Amino acid sequence: MFPLPLLLLLLLPYPSSAADFCVADFSGPTSPLGFSCKKESAVTASEFVFSGLGAAGNTNNIIKAAVTPAFAGQFAAVNGLGISAARLDLAPGGVVPLHTHPAASELLVVTQGVISAGFISSANTPYTATLRKGDAMVFPQGLLHYQVNAGGITAVAIVSFSSPSPGLQITDFALFANNISTPLIQKVTFLDAEQILKLKKVLGGSG
Amino acid sequence: MFPLPLLLLLLLPYPSSAADFCVADFSGPTSPLGFSCKKESAVTASEFVFSGLGAAGNTNNIIKAAVTPAFAGQFAAVNGLGISAARLDLAPGGVVPLHTHPAASELLVVTQGVISAGFISSANTPYTATLRKGDAMVFPQGLLHYQVNAGGITAVAIVSFSSPSPGLQITDFALFANNISTPLIQKVTFLDAEQILKLKKVLGGSG
Amino acid sequence: MFPLPLLLLLLLPYPSSAADFCVADFSGPTSPLGFSCKKESAVTASEFVFSGLGAAGNTNNIIKAAVTPAFAGQFAAVNGLGISAARLDLAPGGVVPLHTHPAASELLVVTQGVISAGFISSANTPYTATLRKGDAMVFPQGLLHYQVNAGGITAVAIVSFSSPSPGLQITDFALFANNISTPLIQKVTFLDAEQILKLKKVLGGSG
Amino acid sequence: MFPLPLLLLLLLPYPSSAADFCVADFSGPTSPLGFSCKKESAVTASEFVFSGLGAAGNTNNIIKAAVTPAFAGQFAAVNGLGISAARLDLAPGGVVPLHTHPAASELLVVTQGVISAGFISSANTPYTATLRKGDAMVFPQGLLHYQVNAGGITAVAIVSFSSPSPGLQITDFALFANNISTPLIQKVTFLDAEQILKLKKVLGGSG
Amino acid sequence: MFPLPLLLLLLLPYPSSAADFCVADFSGPTSPLGFSCKKESAVTASEFVFSGLGAAGNTNNIIKAAVTPAFAGQFAAVNGLGISAARLDLAPGGVVPLHTHPAASELLVVTQGVISAGFISSANTPYTATLRKGDAMVFPQGLLHYQVNAGGITAVAIVSFSSPSPGLQITDFALFANNISTPLIQKVTFLDAEQILKLKKVLGGSG
Amino acid sequence: MFPLPLLLLLLLPYPSSAADFCVADFSGPTSPLGFSCKKESAVTASEFVFSGLGAAGNTNNIIKAAVTPAFAGQFAAVNGLGISAARLDLAPGGVVPLHTHPAASELLVVTQGVISAGFISSANTPYTATLRKGDAMVFPQGLLHYQVNAGGITAVAIVSFSSPSPGLQITDFALFANNISTPLIQKVTFLDAEQILKLKKVLGGSG
Repeated sequence: MFPLPLLLLLLLPYPSSAADFCVADFSGPTSPLGFSCKKESAVTASEFVFSGLGAAGNTNNIIKAAVTPAFAGQFAAVNGLGISAARLDLAPGGVVPLHTHPAASELLVVTQGVISAGFISSANTPYTATLRKGDAMVFPQGLLHYQVNAGGITAVAIVSFSSPSPGLQITDFALFANNISTPLIQKVTFLDAEQILKLKKVLGGSG
Repeated sequence: MFPLPLLLLLLLPYPSSAADFCVADFSGPTSPLGFSCKKESAVTASEFVFSGLGAAGNTNNIIKAAVTPAFAGQFAAVNGLGISAARLDLAPGGVVPLHTHPAASELLVVTQGVISAGFISSANTPYTATLRKGDAMVFPQGLLHYQVNAGGITAVAIVSFSSPSPGLQITDFALFANNISTPLIQKVTFLDAEQILKLKKVLGGSG
Repeated sequence: MFPLPLLLLLLLPYPSSAADFCVADFSGPTSPLGFSCKKESAVTASEFVFSGLGAAGNTNNIIKAAVTPAFAGQFAAVNGLGISAARLDLAPGGVVPLHTHPAASELLVVTQGVISAGFISSANTPYTATLRKGDAMVFPQGLLHYQVNAGGITAVAIVSFSSPSPGLQITDFALFANNISTPLIQKVTFLDAEQILKLKKVLGGSG
Repeated sequence: MFPLPLLLLLLLPYPSSAADFCVADFSGPTSPLGFSCKKESAVTASEFVFSGLGAAGNTNNIIKAAVTPAFAGQFAAVNGLGISAARLDLAPGGVVPLHTHPAASELLVVTQGVISAGFISSANTPYTATLRKGDAMVFPQGLLHYQVNAGGITAVAIVSFSSPSPGLQITDFALFANNISTPLIQKVTFLDAEQILKLKKVLGGSG
Repeated sequence: MFPLPLLLLLLLPYPSSAADFCVADFSGPTSPLGFSCKKESAVTASEFVFSGLGAAGNTNNIIKAAVTPAFAGQFAAVNGLGISAARLDLAPGGVVPLHTHPAASELLVVTQGVISAGFISSANTPYTATLRKGDAMVFPQGLLHYQVNAGGITAVAIVSFSSPSPGLQITDFALFANNISTPLIQKVTFLDAEQILKLKKVLGGSG
Repeated sequence: MFPLPLLLLLLLPYPSSAADFCVADFSGPTSPLGFSCKKESAVTASEFVFSGLGAAGNTNNIIKAAVTPAFAGQFAAVNGLGISAARLDLAPGGVVPLHTHPAASELLVVTQGVISAGFISSANTPYTATLRKGDAMVFPQGLLHYQVNAGGITAVAIVSFSSPSPGLQITDFALFANNISTPLIQKVTFLDAEQILKLKKVLGGSG
């Protein structure tokens, strides 16, 4: 009575690729918009799930902080979907130093503890806040910002980004964790040579 | 008098790829924005033409309707151009059941017969209309909508989309044409088990 | 038993503006992306319908052709939705002269008669075709193209665009329907003054 | 020695508006891309913070669930930044019924309890998972999906979206919470009249 | 004292590909958005530099002009970055004939000499100006425009584009440098056959 | 013979606004994509020309450098066109300190002198080059970069951006030209208090 085979004919002509999602195929070429897509027939439900944000990051380092990313590079399913996430752990005294995401805005939600955070606009105006559990703060794309533990216990936050590959540029690491010459850094930052050499020693830079 | 070879030199340095068009190469990798491009030198004029919209679709099925797509998957030349089309045939009593296009707005133009169509907004407000030959209606991206034959003869429409791969999700098929368990469907739709089982039988679902 | 008022509370907090659609408010300011949006509460179903494509355009002119647009300027509901349409009437001998759409790709579907159409790529390669009822052709964004009646009867086509405001620049009108000086046109087109003056007379240009 | 006034001259010519952020001015016109921007000089740091996600939503309703949005309509600072968030509370037995976000992908992170979630692709394939604390799942733009409490305690999740105004269309509410006529719903969903009337009664629909 | 290895662990998880830049790999497939990306580890600083704009272009041709492009096809590093450039040389009497860039706006800055330039809007209104050293002019996307030497010496300009692959369609070359038949050109341009044949002879067209 | 009035009728229905260009109306509201548009009828040719890049900027300041912007805020015609420009003057010893453009890639072309320039990637890799007259360099969006005079004479460059409002955030000014407290800067930069206070004194910061 119901001609099912005809029904299926109705559905067959629709192309499935490149429409619903584009789970990253890390073995394929990348384009300006992200990774190549796995064939839809090879994609399984588990690829849309990322479990890495459940465990605390290792904050046993000089910044007493850890960022656990679920970007397209780790969480293939967000490729092409305009969104990604990360977990932020800040031990007491912990800090995510001044940094930018070159290609994304960030939205942070505190899930434990207290975080003092802020960003600085192009007009050099600081926008700062003290955030408690459940508070959210948005950091506009490309602007310098930071997060600091402002409570006595480890603070945790879930952050999301308006890009599957937001990038992360920590100003200190950009300056002091490579081989840019000290005189050049002096010239473009006005910092004293002594200060530069001190931080290069800490962060592994040379030159 | 006119040094033609020099003229050609003027033109040579311009890169042709990735600028004018990107006819889909279905054998290459796909990116979040669509299929890979065929080499321009291999593209012929006939690839910019799609003849499939000239013939009536087969409406001999339970919905008495047919959708003949000219999406990037069928019409390679629209890849990357932000547009695609389809032909809609609605036999008397025919209906395109409630559905969405996850990634595109739709613009329908009636070329024969009468169609009753509508969409429902996020605020749950229905916007409905009776469309005659020459009438156009636009269905905003991602919203539930339907088309029903409202005349005594077969109705035909040309529909275009704001994406080369608009996608198509028919709500009934999403629910009743696969193996989602009946209790789960009950839970997320409030439908009675009996109703669900009845439609699963019609649409080929199990579970 | 079912606490409906609580249900409504669930829905209330959702913002409706700027999400589903943006029907043009021609009295408001325009932005780079189009017209301002009417308040959703003031939008009626009939605004999503455009009836102007049902009637033949007046082809009693020198090009024996008419273009009836359903762009955002005429069809307010397509504003912000990435799509628009138009009806093309070509009387016998009719022609839509060489033109571009500066901001959109075009997809043409013939609904009556025969149309000879073509576009020219940046590499100066022409891509031409003869289109019959039901045939579709896509013209990539910004490239010169034309449509010519190639049958004995009036040809009609439904065209859609990948922008609500595709623009239209007819090369002849850009050159000969304004006051650009003849010597300047000579310089930038290599055309003879006599030819330019002849076409200015036809198209209303001066200078 | 350091001519500060000259320094300030260097900075003065830079335009600050429309570059860094665009905090929504709800009293101004809306554009297809969102709300108008407040003047930067009137924006304070507290506008970048949203505290509404800290408190549990009221789940005392038929779905035993609550969604607390921090979309551009509630959290003006995300306007124009391509991101927004919400808090999801699911009491035991709670469910967010089948729904779509017409204009955004969603990324959910469980912060308490266990959630069973899933989405259905255009090809009618379900992708489902059981998510525990710290698990993330991504739901591609425009596709039907649901979330169900799968543990004995209230489950909580932070969800983020790839748009400041993602929209929300709950299928049941779109069908049964307005005045679409029962025969029309029958036609476009294949549901029985009895089933439709039953749900209209629950959800407040008429017709 | 400062556990550097732990520091490096912090940085390792960040994906570098597809975020910062996408230097074109001309041997890979192209997507609608441009060329594939070279692996970041294979990219050197010199690839971000293009030296071709330093030398005068050869203006020993009929238009006494030369355009030296630094588009993605020549300057691989601009791929995916939304920008490109070119150098324009106009010998005395030189002219860049009427043309469009199908996919980009252009911003011209005169660095030597005097240039008379203009564009024509969709409304057929010409916008013209005489530009001296240091003057900038912007030509909106897809519109016909030209540049003419208006001084006694060679004029030079640096032009930039809002796309890595702006394309270039010179109207005369599109019409007269290929094999489009003279009768067809007559039909779509209103030009006389004699004029067409004369320009075909100059520009190498046949038909 | 040629019914001109009918011809004009053909053109009348086309909407001109929001298609060709959107010259900024600074008195109107701004949207996330930029300024409101002036009415096309009020726009004159001279608004597409910007003459401010012809004169040397005042480099009589501590950085011996000047940036003269032609952004949407100064050059209203680039609003909405995806491009802008600036002139860079570097006196001997001059430097544009480390900075980012939060919303744009930059393409620099040297027109006089020698410039040493570089950017640092998210992976902390520096990409540096010495640029002479005619050399171009591209700085990918959002990444830290600098320009330094590397010759004995004043260096001049024309820079263009992939946005009409690229923004500019000079790291030193973001840190030391406002009232962010010294302890907070210490925490998020690892700099010593003495160094911070020294630079605050130079750049006008307090706290």
